[in-house]
This record gives sequence, structure tokens and C-alpha cells, in this order.
Amino acid sequence: MESAAISQKVSLQLPPPTGEDGRSDQQRLLDALRPQWGQVEMGVGLLRQLYPLCREAQGHVTATLVWKGTGWALTAIEPGDTTACHYGLAVDLGSTSVTMELIDLNTGEVRCRQSRYNRQRAFGDDVLTRIFYGKDNPEHLGELQQAAVDTLAELMEALWEESGVKADHCPAMVLAGNTIMINLLLGLDGYPIFLSPYAPVASDPGFVRGGDLGLPFSGLVYLFPAKANYMGGDIVSGMIATGIARSQRIQLFFDIGTNGELVAGCRDFLVSGAGAAGPALEGGVIRTGMCAAAGAVDRVRIENGAVELSVIGGGKVAGICGSGIVDMIAELFLEDIIDFRGLFQPERSERVERQGEELAFRYADADETVDGVPRYFYQSDIEQFLATKAAAHTMVAYMLAAVGMDFTDVEYFYVAGAFGAYLDPKSAVTIGLYPDIPMEQIRCVGNSSLAGCRALLTDRSHLEEIGGILERMEYIQYGAIENFVDSMHAAAVIPHMNTAVYPSVERWHRERRAREGR
Amino acid sequence: MESAAISQKVSLQLPPPTGEDGRSDQQRLLDALRPQWGQVEMGVGLLRQLYPLCREAQGHVTATLVWKGTGWALTAIEPGDTTACHYGLAVDLGSTSVTMELIDLNTGEVRCRQSRYNRQRAFGDDVLTRIFYGKDNPEHLGELQQAAVDTLAELMEALWEESGVKADHCPAMVLAGNTIMINLLLGLDGYPIFLSPYAPVASDPGFVRGGDLGLPFSGLVYLFPAKANYMGGDIVSGMIATGIARSQRIQLFFDIGTNGELVAGCRDFLVSGAGAAGPALEGGVIRTGMCAAAGAVDRVRIENGAVELSVIGGGKVAGICGSGIVDMIAELFLEDIIDFRGLFQPERSERVERQGEELAFRYADADETVDGVPRYFYQSDIEQFLATKAAAHTMVAYMLAAVGMDFTDVEYFYVAGAFGAYLDPKSAVTIGLYPDIPMEQIRCVGNSSLAGCRALLTDRSHLEEIGGILERMEYIQYGAIENFVDSMHAAAVIPHMNTAVYPSVERWHRERRAREGR
Repeated sequence: MESAAISQKVSLQLPPPTGEDGRSDQQRLLDALRPQWGQVEMGVGLLRQLYPLCREAQGHVTATLVWKGTGWALTAIEPGDTTACHYGLAVDLGSTSVTMELIDLNTGEVRCRQSRYNRQRAFGDDVLTRIFYGKDNPEHLGELQQAAVDTLAELMEALWEESGVKADHCPAMVLAGNTIMINLLLGLDGYPIFLSPYAPVASDPGFVRGGDLGLPFSGLVYLFPAKANYMGGDIVSGMIATGIARSQRIQLFFDIGTNGELVAGCRDFLVSGAGAAGPALEGGVIRTGMCAAAGAVDRVRIENGAVELSVIGGGKVAGICGSGIVDMIAELFLEDIIDFRGLFQPERSERVERQGEELAFRYADADETVDGVPRYFYQSDIEQFLATKAAAHTMVAYMLAAVGMDFTDVEYFYVAGAFGAYLDPKSAVTIGLYPDIPMEQIRCVGNSSLAGCRALLTDRSHLEEIGGILERMEYIQYGAIENFVDSMHAAAVIPHMNTAVYPSVERWHRERRAREGR
Repeated sequence: MESAAISQKVSLQLPPPTGEDGRSDQQRLLDALRPQWGQVEMGVGLLRQLYPLCREAQGHVTATLVWKGTGWALTAIEPGDTTACHYGLAVDLGSTSVTMELIDLNTGEVRCRQSRYNRQRAFGDDVLTRIFYGKDNPEHLGELQQAAVDTLAELMEALWEESGVKADHCPAMVLAGNTIMINLLLGLDGYPIFLSPYAPVASDPGFVRGGDLGLPFSGLVYLFPAKANYMGGDIVSGMIATGIARSQRIQLFFDIGTNGELVAGCRDFLVSGAGAAGPALEGGVIRTGMCAAAGAVDRVRIENGAVELSVIGGGKVAGICGSGIVDMIAELFLEDIIDFRGLFQPERSERVERQGEELAFRYADADETVDGVPRYFYQSDIEQFLATKAAAHTMVAYMLAAVGMDFTDVEYFYVAGAFGAYLDPKSAVTIGLYPDIPMEQIRCVGNSSLAGCRALLTDRSHLEEIGGILERMEYIQYGAIENFVDSMHAAAVIPHMNTAVYPSVERWHRERRAREGR
């Protein structure tokens, strides 16, 4: 029975050799497969496994096939019927952490998931350091590749321990990552990615044998292709997960992180672009900013001067993370504690104090914090953040304008990435980071890179879709756009200079004032 | 400019990356090839070579492609235009000796040729010993494979020294050998080849990466497929060389050696069979028999009682080799020194003497031999040989009968193998080893296994022909044929019990008698 999965396990009963039928074991196998699977590719390694396997199993064997887009390749041959055990691996190869899922291809369900830090961090937390470490140095490139390979091997091991399924024996691993991560995994010099005009060395490795990557994996590894240096396989994978390229109406896909990658379009057209959204979004440059860990404020509500915080882990306050920052600015704005420029209005709250050079908002008192020191949200923090959100907003607006559309034409606004997952959509709209569209049209898709890998594993028809995306998708070099920075100024205020595009925010603002009788 | 060769070298000028064109080096390369060569396969190893090669060469590169039957695979990428240097390797992998040719694929000429003993001989001169050495023993199988690989590596080295062309960088190596030799080269257990009912494990490895064979060869290795255990790729290769499968009229292909492999047919049908022709043919069991080396009698003429010998090397007589034996028996028969049963007629020559138990013919006197001891050709030698030639003849006759034909329907009788190359066709017909057809229809094709490899290298369309041969060719298990041995008796006499099928021999016999006034 043929499923849509990228790999298939086929139980066969091969006829025994007779005086009249002197075909080789190999021929028997290929002939048995041909009617349904066509001419199947078979490597030397498998030839060595045929004997005595086929004869000891009296010809009752299970062949495992992987679809390579143009034909099927044999990846394993086992005695008896093993079709009940059929799994695949989905991998999101991130620069910080790597996540791998074991997918049951008979049911399509995620059997288990494991995450590990990318061992390449030993060569630098940020990818730039890693790239310069490997630049023009094959030996170092080998180390970087090995680090990635070791991370994947460790994950397969962990999945095996958790599930009892030999992950390294799966027929297929589908992996997505940005262009740099894929280059380093392939042992390629990542440096050219920074050479202008930007063009990567390899964009579409396709199907690679585990062994060819130095990976202890007997199957085939599919690497999602990149559209451009800064429009990597992780984004293409996200497009598969969300189905933008198949949709009738226009959708937006926004992966917000240190970099922001954006795709707008539908089945008729696709436009993409990328830019530095800035670490501000992830609480990087906010003075009391921190990543979403225990002690981080991830939710903020302010009403009648009272500040209500939700702290990850439920303990005392250590700092504030991305989702908390967005809430904070949204609430400060709705409460008129900051104006549309983000400037503090001291008369609106006794919590606004002068701290050194600047004004700041005391969001956590001494008795609420881990170290008995109050926490402040600074004027400069707000400026930092608004600059970043302006960039992000302008990317979206510019792209829609480029295709002659505006927010009202957008069916869904997909927000990918860990940051988007925790963000309160209403707050994000309030500060003008997200477009002002109905809440139900804003979809947080989380790790869509991983989800796209899962989708391809369970439905090989996506391979064709990927080919179409690469062909049709246009790529805009934001860097090359004149007056991009100028047009950002209009987006640097809350929610936007052109309040007409944020009707909801005006309404919410009015409602809040009314409720508080201002 | 596209040639018919199995590999192509394509000089390209890749457009440089620009702000508008951010395609990867890989994409530039594949896009440049696609119009003429379609979707080209590209491995990870080559991705690693793209940078900085493409950019340092300002996009002026030469891509090397190999045709795999269903599509082209990229095997090399070089800076500049290297199309002037385009070579391929043809290999006949024999159990005793291995011959490799360097073919200039721009001209189709043989640039140079080298032969070496197969290093597997260290594990046994006869293949049986080697097979039992490797039976169920992966480690030993590894040694046997390594020995074959080392032999090929040594030959590439030798060709490089002779020609200055890096043989290990050729895009394609086309190799043919019998089923056992191919199995051992692939590291496969050869034992099952002897398991009845006879069916090999792997018959069609197709294209294999040099590295996958442990071979220091950067290109692809094509291994000629086998039809059956005893109808190996060396014979299929011979069919390509002779063009039997393309001919309008019926042709016979006979590879005579320790085993005799036979193919009869034309473009409409193909029948094949194999049997132990016996070492007698190669002078193995003849008492004074030896291989065709210095001191061996390779030509014999007898007229009016006078014996005229030609000795390899021109020195004194040490023994007699296959071609000499066939001459000897033919001459003895035409001179009536032996009758149609092969029995000596002592009254016809004073050289016929009793030696121990039996009669013998003194073909070399004491003063003519290396050791001063006269050389004799014994009654038992003749019996031995006639039994063997009977087997060979019957194979041919039976096969023709099986397809309702006789010798008069045969256009060409191709004789392959070293033995056939040195044989005097007229003598071979006289003793009834060859069919009685006009001399010009008997073609000695020598090492047709090697010639077939050469043919495929220079004309990839033969790949399809090979597929057709495997599909259409019937294989007869002589061993399974009843009364095969009985029917051999009729062929055990000179030239044959049914003299009607050997009219020429009767005529020659009459002429000889007349000339000598008998």
C-alpha cells in the first residue's frame, strides 16, 4: 500500500531461483519493485547485504525506498515484514539549538522530539565568528562540520534512547537551516555568503547520503534548498509548513529573530526579503532584557497605575524578555505613560523616575526582585526597540507596497520563530510591530522550519512545490533599496505615523481611556 | 559540441553574481548546463570544489559529465577550458591478467594499454580457490576486493607514467569481467555462484563511484552486467564489440577458454549457453602441452612425412601450445597418420612409435628440443582433445538446432579469447572445432571484452543495447540438457560423424592426398 510519505517500506515475496529462472537476487528484487516503483536506484552497499539475507529469509524481505524527486532509491533491505516500523527524522538545524523529531510515517505522528545546543557554539556563539574561523581553512571547516554532525548524532542517540527506535536506521532525514548552517554542515566555506554581490556557493544540495556527510546515518538526508544567502532553507521549509505557495489569497510569512525574513504572496506570486531586525526584539539590548528563562517577565498589564507582571517560573523578577517588552511598551502607550513617540510622560505615573541621564519606568519594586534591586525600563530601551520594530514593520509594508497591496488584502499573517510564539498578538499590533488585522488572522506557527521538514516527510509531493517556490519567488535586497531608512521613520512611532492603518489601536486606546475615566 | 562518448567535457562561461542575480555558484553551473544536458546530478564532494574555483576562474570553467543511462552526472569541475584533455578507461578484469586501456575520447583512439597479473592470484590461481577463501568471511572478501582494487590502481599508475595523463581523474571507467570477478571486485561473496539452481547475488551493479569500490578514482565506474552466473559481463561486452544484437543475419559468438561461452542470434533473437570446454584446449592436459610462451610449438605443418614446426621465440622446442595442438591434429588427419577416430596408423609414418602403453607421434627430435629429449604427441592426448572439441562443437550445433538453424545460416562466427586469436581457422575447421563455413566468415576478435568497454566509452548509446540484450537473451543450461553427452559422441570424430556438414574438410583431404599422390 503506497502512502504519500517520502519513504516507503515494501514487503515482498521474491520467487526462488529455479533451473528456468536464473535471475540474480538483485534482479529478483528490482523486478519485483519495478511494476509499482519503476527503475529503482541501488548502491553497492546494499548489494553486499543481499546474500545470504534474501535466501535465509526465503525471499520474504522488506525493501525501503526513498523518493528523490525523479525516482526511488533503495536504502535498506531487511528479512521478513518490517513495514510496521517506519520512521523518518525532521531536523531544524539552528545556529544556537538543533531540534530533531522522530516521525512515525505510518501514522504521521511525532513519536518524540529532542533538542540540543549546536556544538558549533564551541567555535563562537554568533555565526560570524564561526565563519571567520573556517574561512580559507579546510581543517577548521572540517571541525565545524564535525561539530554539526556530532550534534545530529547525539540527537539520534537521544531519540533512540527515548523511543527504542534506531533513528540512525531511518530511510530519510529532512533537514532545514539557514544558508550558513547548511554550508557549514556540508563542510563548505561560509565566507562567500558575505561577499557582495551576495551569492552563496551551494544553494541546493538536495539528497545526500548520510555517509557523505560523515553522519552515522544509513539513509538519505534531504537539505532544504536556499533561495538566497539570507533566504535560507529554513524559510523555504516554513513556506511549506504554512502553505503560502498554495494559498488562493495573499499571506504574509514573517520569521522574527536577530534577522527578519519575510515572504509575501500566494499561489500566483511570491516576494521575499530579509533584513537585520536586530536583537532588540529578543531583549538583547534592553538594559534589563534577558532571554525567556526563569525570572523573566513575559507578560505585563498596567491598569490605573497598578503594574501586573507574570514571571516565568513564578518566582521573583530577574529581568524582562521579548514578549514582556512588547507588552510593556503597549501598556505604557495605552496608559499614556509614553506618547506616540515613546517619550515618557512623568505626570502620568509616579513610577516614572529619573535614573541617571534619563527617565525610566520602575516595573518591579525592590521586594519583587531576585536581588532586592528594583527593575527599570529605560527611555533608551524604548528608543532601541522602536527602531527595531520600525525596521520590521517597514519590511512588511514595503513588500506589500511592492506588490501593490496593503494589510487589508492579507488573509493570514504567519509569525514564525520562538519570539513570535510567546508574543501577545494584541500588544504586537498596538505598538505597530504587527499589521492591524483581525486577531484570528494572526497565526503563530512557532518552529515552522521544523514543521516544514515534518510536512515533506509525510507528503513527498512538497518536493515539487519546493522547486516551484525557488523558481517563482522574487528576492528583494532591502539593503539595495534607497530611502528604506527614511521610510522607517514613519514606522518609528506608536503605532505608526499613519494612524489610519491602525484603526484598532485607536479604538483600544479610546476604550482604555474611557474605562479609566480619563 | 556533443559527441557520442559516455562522458562529456563542457566549457562554460558562468555569469558573475550581481545585485539582481544572487543565484549560487551551484545554481549558475546547473542552469548553464540545463538547456543541453537537462537536470544534472551533483554530489557533495563537488559542492566543496565550487569555491573559490568558480570565482578565481571568473566563471570560465569546464564541467565533466557522465551519462548514466537516465541522466547526466557531474564528475568534475575545473578552471578554464580543459576540453582538449578528455580520456576514459576501458578494463578487462580477467582472473589471470587485467588489461586497461586509456582511450582518448576526443579522437576515439587508444592512447596506451597496460596489462598486469590479477593480484588475486596470491589467493589462488584458479577462481575456485579464491571463492572458498572468501566464503562466509567478510574479512577475506575484503582482502580479495583490495587485491583487485590494487591491480586496477597499479594499472592507472602505469598508464599515467606512460602517457602523462592522470588516469585516476578520468570521468569514466568501463569494466568487464566474468560474474565471479565482478562479485569479488564488489566485495561480494562469490560462493552462491556455485549454489544450484544457479543464480548470482548481484548481476547489474551499473554505475558505481570509484570511492565506493575503495578505488583511487574520482570518476564513475560502469560494470558490465551479467546475464547469468556463467554468462558474465565479459561476454555481454563481447556482444557489444561484435554487434551481434544489432545484426540482421545470424551470428555466432564463441569465447573459448577453460569455459566456453556461446551466443547465437541477431537483432531478432539471442540464445546463449556456457559449458566447460576444458583446459585441453589451452594445452592444459596434453602431456607436452604448455601455454603460448617461448619454446612452445604454435604452428605445425606435415607434408610427405616431413614435420615443419614454428616455435614461439624461434628457439628450440619445449612443448606445444593450443594453436599447435589444433594444427597437429589437423595435419595428422589430413596426412592419414590418424584416422577419423583419431587413432594412429603406424604404417603411415615412421614417426609413430610405441611409447610405454600407447602409440605416440614424435614431432620434435632430440636435436630440436631444449633438453635434448624428443617430444611426443600421444594417443591419449588426441583422445583428450577430441573429447573437448566435441563438447565445444556440440554446444554450437545444439544451440543452432535449438533455434532451428544450421551452419549455413551463420553470417559470422566470432571467436573470442586469446586461444581463438592464435588458432589457424582452417585447422580448427579441419578437426571439426569450428563449423565448416567460408574462412572470411570466421572472425577472431581477440579480447572482445576489452573491445566492448572501449565501444561503450566512445558510444553511450550501447547502454540501451545492453539493456535490450539482458532482456531478450535466453540462457540455456547445458548441464540441464538430456542426451547432451550422447550427442557429443557424433562430434568426437574428425571432423564429425556427419561428414555432410564438413564438405570443405573432405575436399581438403582429397586435395592433400592427390598432391602427395596417394
